[in-house]
Amino acid sequence: MAEKYKEITANDIRAAADRIRPYITRTPLVYSPALSEKTGAEVYLKLENLQAIGAFKVRGAANKILTLSDEQKKKGVSTFSTGNHGMAVAHIASKLGIPATVCMSSHVPEVKVKAIKRWGPTVLQNWESQDDAGVYCYELQEKEGVTVIPPFDDKEIICGQGTIALEIMEDLPDVDTVLVPLSGGGLISGIALGTKFARPDAKIVGISMERAAVMIESLKAGHPIEMPEEPTLADSLLGGIGLDNEYTFDIVRDMVDETAQVSEKEIADGVAYIMENHKVIAEGASAVGVAYAMREGNIRPGSKVAIVVTGCGIDMKTVKEILDERY
Amino acid sequence: MAEKYKEITANDIRAAADRIRPYITRTPLVYSPALSEKTGAEVYLKLENLQAIGAFKVRGAANKILTLSDEQKKKGVSTFSTGNHGMAVAHIASKLGIPATVCMSSHVPEVKVKAIKRWGPTVLQNWESQDDAGVYCYELQEKEGVTVIPPFDDKEIICGQGTIALEIMEDLPDVDTVLVPLSGGGLISGIALGTKFARPDAKIVGISMERAAVMIESLKAGHPIEMPEEPTLADSLLGGIGLDNEYTFDIVRDMVDETAQVSEKEIADGVAYIMENHKVIAEGASAVGVAYAMREGNIRPGSKVAIVVTGCGIDMKTVKEILDERY
Repeated sequence: MAEKYKEITANDIRAAADRIRPYITRTPLVYSPALSEKTGAEVYLKLENLQAIGAFKVRGAANKILTLSDEQKKKGVSTFSTGNHGMAVAHIASKLGIPATVCMSSHVPEVKVKAIKRWGPTVLQNWESQDDAGVYCYELQEKEGVTVIPPFDDKEIICGQGTIALEIMEDLPDVDTVLVPLSGGGLISGIALGTKFARPDAKIVGISMERAAVMIESLKAGHPIEMPEEPTLADSLLGGIGLDNEYTFDIVRDMVDETAQVSEKEIADGVAYIMENHKVIAEGASAVGVAYAMREGNIRPGSKVAIVVTGCGIDMKTVKEILDERY
Repeated sequence: MAEKYKEITANDIRAAADRIRPYITRTPLVYSPALSEKTGAEVYLKLENLQAIGAFKVRGAANKILTLSDEQKKKGVSTFSTGNHGMAVAHIASKLGIPATVCMSSHVPEVKVKAIKRWGPTVLQNWESQDDAGVYCYELQEKEGVTVIPPFDDKEIICGQGTIALEIMEDLPDVDTVLVPLSGGGLISGIALGTKFARPDAKIVGISMERAAVMIESLKAGHPIEMPEEPTLADSLLGGIGLDNEYTFDIVRDMVDETAQVSEKEIADGVAYIMENHKVIAEGASAVGVAYAMREGNIRPGSKVAIVVTGCGIDMKTVKEILDERY
């Protein structure tokens, strides 16, 4: 059986770019003098943390919602993500004037609820657990035709994230290496496809934390597996890939050239490095690419490297702790 | 006598934009949910801190150097700025393969010398004072035909900085207010001209620190004056406007709708606010626009506001102090 992802074409990603353009920030690819000097390569950071919601997730959400039928748009969208994906769905729905419902447990901390509410959705908090909120979300879909926007394992989500690759190649046409944080695989799937349609020899590296790197362990097992979550500075990379994964497992297996894992210490060093050298505060999950690049021997001198910095969801207390240890 | 700046046309700024495009970062105009909620306006930040050298100064330097004759380019350029302008000149000259000389006193701190050297110029440090270094710089110009690149009071520099206005209007065509840090006036002159050629009714506000705001005091006096420098968190805004000022004094007087001054406390609050809400570390001089916008009543609800964030030249010790006071 042919892998399902093979239906995705270069045109799908180009169409996504045209579709989402009015709703996202065209982020800059900034040169990193410090990392270039350190590695002997030409290193750039793709700053997706500059999206309005502070993370790349807005690309996939925009592409998915914009490809819904008028009927679906009218009935609205929902999600039970309380993180970047939840904000992305709420933000895009609000821009398009589409009703959005975010379902969450009554135990979600006030600060997260407030961050979601800023983007204008209806927030329902009638459940004791996030799992129950998710069940209701799918009930809404079945009973009322409200579309649940999936976080990563979806063709349109993948194509939306893949627009990052097109922008990187616009700014750095001869890029040969792209470093991408790896979690559920929606981001790296889009970037691997988007890059390799144009530059088949470019190297795509997926990087996770050491703790509970579900995709990397699934690749070793040869099929999607489940793992318990563990606390990590790269908390945005937590979460499963789904035992019934349709796209991202196959794409990562077939299109990603290398995977790597970085330690909590390396992640904190990466956050500090980006802060000191670029004056940008990136969340732990965002710093895994820089952490990988800082390891001796990982970057080939003379190569042209783009590192995707995915988001800035880190609280100032954690930022202060990272600074306190170093200055 | 007609003001000299009246020779500058909309086409000059458009030509500058085309000229410098390959050498600068096209920076994003990011939406500020926090400032928008606070003011009832639609507020955006223009993040010039994302330029490779960490400040907008590359725009003017690139435009000036690119308009030199081939003969002049061959003989090279020089500057005695040890700050953002010095880095900008060195960086652009290096990109263009033009020799660059930066003259500085032997007392310039090693960290600043290193920051300049990163961009590849010849650094001369044979003088006891920065004034003597400046004198030598002009001797080089007279004797050897090396062009001193002026920091702000120059038509091509002004047009280079004015390209920021064109980008703001590309992203936010109906912008009605632009908040700009005010020092020697090169930046705000370019932005005021660039904005008003297209949108004559847009309001341009220039903001300085309370201490030693030379341009604002010169406007009050009716002519350029000199003032002693005083320590400030907005140190990039220090420096005179030149008693023989040719362009920027007249432009600021005629084209800037309002000037304001913010306190050291407000500047620190602005730095912290940008850090917390946008996860971007801006230097004090960059935060004066946000500081102004945070004052009750300064921003008209419903208006569309762009705040220029100019650079990120702030050391991590100062960042840590600002955080320590607040978290």
